[in-house]
Amino acid sequence: MNKDNLTMLTDFYEITMANGFFNEGIGDKIVYFDMFFRTIPDGGGYAVMAGVEQMIEYLEDLSFTDEDIEYLRGKNMFSEGFLEYLRKFEFKCDVWSVPEGTPVFPGEPLVIVRGPAIQAQFVETMILLTVNFQTMIATKANRIARAAEGRAVMEFGARRAQGAYAAIYGARAAYIAGCSGTSNVLTDKKYGVPALGTMAHSWVQMFDTELEAFKAYARNYPDDTTLLIDTYNVLRSGLPNAIRTFDEVLKPMGKRPKGVRIDSGDITYLSKKCRAMLDAAGYSDCGIVASNSLDEYIIRDMLIQGAEIDLFGVGERLITSRSNPVMGGVYKLAAVEDDKGNIIPKIKISENVAKITTPCFKQVYRLYDSDTSKAIADVVTLHDEKIDPSEPYELFDPEFTWKRKRVTGFFARPLLKRIFRKGKCVYESPSVEVLREYCSMQVDGLWEELKRFENPHKYYVDLSEKLWTIKNDMLRTYTVD
Amino acid sequence: MNKDNLTMLTDFYEITMANGFFNEGIGDKIVYFDMFFRTIPDGGGYAVMAGVEQMIEYLEDLSFTDEDIEYLRGKNMFSEGFLEYLRKFEFKCDVWSVPEGTPVFPGEPLVIVRGPAIQAQFVETMILLTVNFQTMIATKANRIARAAEGRAVMEFGARRAQGAYAAIYGARAAYIAGCSGTSNVLTDKKYGVPALGTMAHSWVQMFDTELEAFKAYARNYPDDTTLLIDTYNVLRSGLPNAIRTFDEVLKPMGKRPKGVRIDSGDITYLSKKCRAMLDAAGYSDCGIVASNSLDEYIIRDMLIQGAEIDLFGVGERLITSRSNPVMGGVYKLAAVEDDKGNIIPKIKISENVAKITTPCFKQVYRLYDSDTSKAIADVVTLHDEKIDPSEPYELFDPEFTWKRKRVTGFFARPLLKRIFRKGKCVYESPSVEVLREYCSMQVDGLWEELKRFENPHKYYVDLSEKLWTIKNDMLRTYTVD
Repeated sequence: MNKDNLTMLTDFYEITMANGFFNEGIGDKIVYFDMFFRTIPDGGGYAVMAGVEQMIEYLEDLSFTDEDIEYLRGKNMFSEGFLEYLRKFEFKCDVWSVPEGTPVFPGEPLVIVRGPAIQAQFVETMILLTVNFQTMIATKANRIARAAEGRAVMEFGARRAQGAYAAIYGARAAYIAGCSGTSNVLTDKKYGVPALGTMAHSWVQMFDTELEAFKAYARNYPDDTTLLIDTYNVLRSGLPNAIRTFDEVLKPMGKRPKGVRIDSGDITYLSKKCRAMLDAAGYSDCGIVASNSLDEYIIRDMLIQGAEIDLFGVGERLITSRSNPVMGGVYKLAAVEDDKGNIIPKIKISENVAKITTPCFKQVYRLYDSDTSKAIADVVTLHDEKIDPSEPYELFDPEFTWKRKRVTGFFARPLLKRIFRKGKCVYESPSVEVLREYCSMQVDGLWEELKRFENPHKYYVDLSEKLWTIKNDMLRTYTVD
Repeated sequence: MNKDNLTMLTDFYEITMANGFFNEGIGDKIVYFDMFFRTIPDGGGYAVMAGVEQMIEYLEDLSFTDEDIEYLRGKNMFSEGFLEYLRKFEFKCDVWSVPEGTPVFPGEPLVIVRGPAIQAQFVETMILLTVNFQTMIATKANRIARAAEGRAVMEFGARRAQGAYAAIYGARAAYIAGCSGTSNVLTDKKYGVPALGTMAHSWVQMFDTELEAFKAYARNYPDDTTLLIDTYNVLRSGLPNAIRTFDEVLKPMGKRPKGVRIDSGDITYLSKKCRAMLDAAGYSDCGIVASNSLDEYIIRDMLIQGAEIDLFGVGERLITSRSNPVMGGVYKLAAVEDDKGNIIPKIKISENVAKITTPCFKQVYRLYDSDTSKAIADVVTLHDEKIDPSEPYELFDPEFTWKRKRVTGFFARPLLKRIFRKGKCVYESPSVEVLREYCSMQVDGLWEELKRFENPHKYYVDLSEKLWTIKNDMLRTYTVD
């Protein structure tokens, strides 16, 4: 597959600013940007990081064609020196990122970009777009997979995805976060996310009778016979015809059916009836697949009411994160270096306290309880700060500083990994299989209280004493009036 | 820009069905599929068709690489004959589509595909994905542009778009439906949608003071000076510094400022204060730009309360259609041809009456009042049926057939245009400028009652007597018991 070069997918202001930095002689000034988000989608207890592999591809591909330069020249806004800079563009930034599949929380940097002002500014739009979307879908998929309580969830949403990339990368993110596969063939081919699919109603309509349609399908796919049984009437037509097909086509071949799929009607009720009829006919090994506008809430309710479902196909509500279709990640300046290489912290003040940024070049440590290996808290520190697990560590709420907690018997792991060094990628993206396994283990390491759909506990994301002091000093010197 | 080949972006079941059709000897049977939707996003009175150009690109690019074939062979599910068919794949379908920018309504075909069963089935996923997404965004953009009552609306959402294609094509669809431009550079370069953008808060933070940042910007862009005035405090710092910049940098150069932008706070209140201060300082020609989580409802409220805004920048709520992020277009079998070329209608029955399809190879006529040129109703007919405007035409509700209306003094136009003939594209996509103008005229041709955000009138989409009779006869012969 040829790949689109997305260098020019950027907000126009990234280019006006880059040209301005260049002309003002501050284009090579070293700056630090943080990507982070402020609220967890759907009011959940955590989000799941995703999109790093695609962010890396974008950063590795950064380059401007002659055509791009001509287009920009035509705007009569940009200096020739700047256009020449773009023509010879060479990415020089250092980048750190939290690995895909990691549970992440508001206010902690997920990505840090350090490099020349022109470059670190320019990549804002695509870093946000890439990480925002995939993290949102991974977060949603993880909720839905959890609701299914161990049953398989397939991502079936391509036709309602918001564009082709959403379909391709959404299916990837969903798999990392816990789905079992996708309907999307391209995502299977590209990433090895298992693709699955059998028939639409049109298959059934193409034959004179439902039975003929089923028999033709079973003849063609004796090892993968899943039949869609709701084209006419599930209990009076679809299931009896399915059983007859299993008896008359598969049984003589010594094959067993895979499943039946219900895509409409009262699926909970129908699934129980189907289960009983299949069992009575000797097909207790035949699975039941449910699809049709499912999400974590509907799946939970179906299971509470005893639905007999083995596999859920989830479409539009997963691939668009319908109940929360915007992930509001932002990208903010955190520091600049002076001529001597000293890091000068930068802060964005806001009358809206939630929008005040945390300055400095940072790292995030996750503290785990030594006995249970459960995550206790995340601590945002200065980048070179260490947390010594042999000493008690005092956590405190950055807003309500009297809320303190002394932690002992823990170990600490840095979350941000270096992925680019001076513009060269130094990170190998793991396969989706590895990421899926990693995600599952990381989610296992969270307390159950974080996994509620409604009113989950709030996980601690604290600042180190050093970082808090710098931020607080900066806040006190600003008077916003 | 290289283009991704999206042939393999398809649901797996399209391939299992295609292989099945091939093996059953019905792969070349001529079939008719309709793409249509059932409900208008956001409870609006109409949707706006978009995405045809990208659908055409997809259909023209359809081809399978050796790598694709190897991937499919590896599944051990598909016959060698079928894989050979794919290897030599040549698109042979006829396709009709409603042009982009046309107001469209539930239940009428927007796209019709006629061709060999294998092919017409296979293209389902991408036709739906492409038309669903762009139509949804065009519909949303048209609402937002209407709310702005003639003021410019810029699409600013790339960073929150659901993937790169959503950013690129969403910006395109938004422009067709009434936005004035985008922040997305690639959409400008590719389609000529005017891109605009000035500075982020990071520009201001990069300088020691806000005034220095503003002056640097004005020096670099004396013809395009729009300053972001909310980094510290709009009324006490941002606007006074902007005025000083206009006085001290632009005035000596004989230049006038373009605008100031407010991205936070109570924008309605701030805009009125800024307007007065700008006017008093002699800058009544300086525009005020508002951004920050806007949509049609917020813009309407702002204007009701007298906000002094000249340009709205609309981000995440437009590019994701946040209040309605799923467009539920479907693709259903409507007819097949027998060996002699007779068209045999096909219908999908459902216990849910809204989900019963309309059979046959169809056309849609829009009837306009001769005096006002306003659209009266759409009539779905057999494809070769004609509507004679010299005779009175009797409209009737397909469900409540006693609801009848005799129309005289009208003219009728077919909505579906042929875009492919035997696999070759026979349609030239108009430029986005032309489509935008066309859309604006078509929306002008709708009654005001359809344009309400809440409780709009329901537009008539009726069936011709002939089509209704065929459908009704088919329904009566099916007994769904």
